[in-house]
Amino acid sequence: MTVADGYYAVIFTSTSSGDDPAYDAMAKSMDKLAQQQPGFLHMETAKSELGITVSYWQSLQAIEAWKQASEHVVAQKLGQEKWYSSYTVRICKVERQYSFEAGA
Amino acid sequence: MTVADGYYAVIFTSTSSGDDPAYDAMAKSMDKLAQQQPGFLHMETAKSELGITVSYWQSLQAIEAWKQASEHVVAQKLGQEKWYSSYTVRICKVERQYSFEAGA
Repeated sequence: MTVADGYYAVIFTSTSSGDDPAYDAMAKSMDKLAQQQPGFLHMETAKSELGITVSYWQSLQAIEAWKQASEHVVAQKLGQEKWYSSYTVRICKVERQYSFEAGA
Repeated sequence: MTVADGYYAVIFTSTSSGDDPAYDAMAKSMDKLAQQQPGFLHMETAKSELGITVSYWQSLQAIEAWKQASEHVVAQKLGQEKWYSSYTVRICKVERQYSFEAGA
């Protein structure tokens, strides 16, 4: 990702009700769909007891459009009914960033 | 965490050079130390191929003070020399948040 500043992060932290292969399929499908959304920049995910997915967007409008995307709305509903015992979504403005790369 | 808004998130994403028990010990020690810092609110972590740790703080000053804390400076140096092949730190202002809890 090369955008230095002026972009947004959505931090999605979740605890799940249990393993379900249908969840993994849906998560992959949502990853692909998000990448096709206008204003999408990047997505990162990690999972231990807690799942953390951070997606990065060019604007708040792009985030709102993704939240309202019809297939995503269906996924959110299923998520609440079947997969998540809890989650929190935080919408953030990235104010600064710096990186380290070994040997760079 | 009960603070509704006006706080900050530090998103730390990393890839590691390999497993090292000394890393786990240091990570635990840094977790404890962070929680004793003024302005610390909360910390969440998950690890797959990528590690994602998000810490939440009352102010940018609190984040800066934690970055400069002497034991943390030592950990950062060791992290660069031994443990991380890469990492990115993003400092963000949390603009809004919402949560879901099953059965609530």
